[in-house]
Amino acid sequence: MPTKSRQVHLATRPDGLPKHDDFKIVDTVLPDIADGQVLVKQLYMSVDPYMRPRLSNDFELNQVMPGGAIGRVVQSRNANFAEGDVVNNLQGFREYAVSNGMDIRKLAPQPGVPLSAYMSVLGATGFIAYGGLLEIGKLKDGEQVFVSTAAGAVGSVAAQIAKIKGCYVIGSTGSDDKAAWLREIGLDAVINYKKTPIQDALKAAAPRGIDVYFDNVGGDHLDAALACMNSLGRVAVCGMISGYNEPGTRTAVRNLSNIIYGRINLRGFVVMDFVHLREQFNRDMAEWMKSGKLKWKDTVLSGIEQAPAAMVGLMRGENTGKMLVKLSD
Amino acid sequence: MPTKSRQVHLATRPDGLPKHDDFKIVDTVLPDIADGQVLVKQLYMSVDPYMRPRLSNDFELNQVMPGGAIGRVVQSRNANFAEGDVVNNLQGFREYAVSNGMDIRKLAPQPGVPLSAYMSVLGATGFIAYGGLLEIGKLKDGEQVFVSTAAGAVGSVAAQIAKIKGCYVIGSTGSDDKAAWLREIGLDAVINYKKTPIQDALKAAAPRGIDVYFDNVGGDHLDAALACMNSLGRVAVCGMISGYNEPGTRTAVRNLSNIIYGRINLRGFVVMDFVHLREQFNRDMAEWMKSGKLKWKDTVLSGIEQAPAAMVGLMRGENTGKMLVKLSD
Repeated sequence: MPTKSRQVHLATRPDGLPKHDDFKIVDTVLPDIADGQVLVKQLYMSVDPYMRPRLSNDFELNQVMPGGAIGRVVQSRNANFAEGDVVNNLQGFREYAVSNGMDIRKLAPQPGVPLSAYMSVLGATGFIAYGGLLEIGKLKDGEQVFVSTAAGAVGSVAAQIAKIKGCYVIGSTGSDDKAAWLREIGLDAVINYKKTPIQDALKAAAPRGIDVYFDNVGGDHLDAALACMNSLGRVAVCGMISGYNEPGTRTAVRNLSNIIYGRINLRGFVVMDFVHLREQFNRDMAEWMKSGKLKWKDTVLSGIEQAPAAMVGLMRGENTGKMLVKLSD
Repeated sequence: MPTKSRQVHLATRPDGLPKHDDFKIVDTVLPDIADGQVLVKQLYMSVDPYMRPRLSNDFELNQVMPGGAIGRVVQSRNANFAEGDVVNNLQGFREYAVSNGMDIRKLAPQPGVPLSAYMSVLGATGFIAYGGLLEIGKLKDGEQVFVSTAAGAVGSVAAQIAKIKGCYVIGSTGSDDKAAWLREIGLDAVINYKKTPIQDALKAAAPRGIDVYFDNVGGDHLDAALACMNSLGRVAVCGMISGYNEPGTRTAVRNLSNIIYGRINLRGFVVMDFVHLREQFNRDMAEWMKSGKLKWKDTVLSGIEQAPAAMVGLMRGENTGKMLVKLSD
C-alpha cells in the first residue's frame, strides 16, 4: 500500500540566517517497497550546525534534505531487518524512508535510556565530542580547558568529559539560562558572551591559560582562545558556527601568529576519524551516564512541520543540548 | 686592554615598517675579560623576520639587541676555549662579545664550506626548515607542497628539501629576480604575488591541491593555501611576516573553516622542537650540499653600521636567502 510521507525541501538558499520560507513541506506518496527493501517510519531527526554551510552549497534545491535520524522498520522485504527494528539512518527531513538495508544500522536500545539519547550523547554528537577532545585535543587529566557553545549538543558533552578527567573547564554560551545549566553540571567558569566581550571574559576566566580549546565557534572565540593558549596547546576545531550564516562578514581571526611561538596545534576532524574509538566510547559513556557523571538535555520540537523552526532556532542559539524533531512515537 | 666595540640599540619601537632611525649605533668600551671569560670578535650576525615582533614588544629600548652570530675567540681565560676558536652565539648586533663560555658553542667548519653557511643553510635557519617540513609538515615523498617567501632563508631550504623528496613544489616570492632564481633551483611553479593576486595564482599553480603548506607569511597567503588544501593536509606555521609590521591592519584569515571538513592540521614550532633531529640534519645537509642538490644564496651587508639597513631591507623583502651583516673577516 502506498505510504503518504511529508518531506522537507530546501526551497531557496538562505541569505544570512535561515528563514522559515527557505524551506518547504512537501507531500509525497511512497510506492510499495520492492524485494530487498524496508520501509522506515522516522521517530527522531537531527538538526545540526554542520548543515548550515550545506544549505548554501551542497544541498540541492527542491529536493528532500538529508540528515541523521532514528526510525522503526514498519515493513520489511529484507531478511536482515524485521518489523519493529529500530534503525539509525541518514534520511532525516522526511516522515518515512525507504532503504535497501545498506544505509541503515540496527540499534539495540538499552533499557532505561531514552531513544533520543542515541541521537545526541550516544550518537555522532557525543562521539565527535569524545574523539575531538581526547584524540585531537590530546586532553591530559587536570588541564585547563575551554569549550565554546558549551551548552550545545557537542559542547556539553565535551565540557563534561573534561570535568570527568579532572580538568578546569570554562564554557561559553549565549544566555543566562544556559549559563545556569552549565554551572549546574559542574563547569568551573561560565561566560555569557552576549553580556561580556569574549576576549576580556576569557582572559579573566583562565588565570592559568588554556591547554585545550574545543572550538565550535571560530571567529572571535577562536581569536580570544589563541590569546590565552599555553605553550603546546591544542585547538580541536569541531565547528565554526560564527561564520556559517554570514561568510562575507564573519569575524576574522587575527591572533593566529600566536600559534608560532606557542607551538600551538589546530586541527580539524570529522566523526569518521574516530571509528577505532567506538567501543571505548560506548563503554565510557555507558559508565558515565549510569553513574550520573554525564548529563544531557535535548531541545525537541514535534512534527515534521517544525523542522524549519528547528533549523532557524538552532542558528539563533535557542536550543540547549541537541536540537531534535520528533516525527512519531 | 679594554676593547672598543660598536653596538646596535633599539632607539624607538617601529610604527609599521622599521626605519633606520629606529636604531642607533652606539660606541662602547668593553673592560678586560675576567677569569672564566672569553672575548669574541663577531664575524657575521643574523637578521631575521622573527625579530620584528620583538622590536615592538620584547627587546628593551636603548639596550643592545640580541641575535644569532658567529665569531672568533680573540682572548680566552676559559679552559674550554682557545684563541682562534670559531663559536656560535646569540650576541649579535655588536662587534665584540664577552662570554663565560656557557652561551657559546664551538663550530668545526668543514673545508670548502664558507663560514656564512653556518649562519644560514647549516644553522638554525636551515634546521627549522628541515624540522618544520619533515616533522611538523610530515612530508611524504611526491606530495604537493607550497612554500611562501620561497626565496627567503628558510623558504629556499624548505622548497629544495621538498624537491629532493620528489614533491611538486610551488613557491611564492615578491620579485621577478627572486622568481627566476627559484626556477633555476628547480621549483615546479613560482608565483610573484606582487603581480598576481595570490589566491588566483595559487589555485592555478596547484591543480592537484596542496598537501603541505610551509607558511612564512600568514594573512592572504595562508588564506589562499587553506582554499587549496587537500584532505588531511598539514600547515607548518613557521612565521607570519605579513602581520609583523602592521598588526592593526594585517590581513585577516577567513578560510579557517576549511580546516574542519578538510581535517587540516596547522601547527606552530620553534627550532628547539627539533633537537633530536640534529645529527640527521647535519648528515642530510652535508650530502645534499656536496651533491649540489641544495643551493643557497646569502644577502650580505658589510659593517655593523649596516645592521639597521639589513633589518629595513629584510622587512621590505630586499634579500634573497639569508640576510647577514659581515662584521669582520
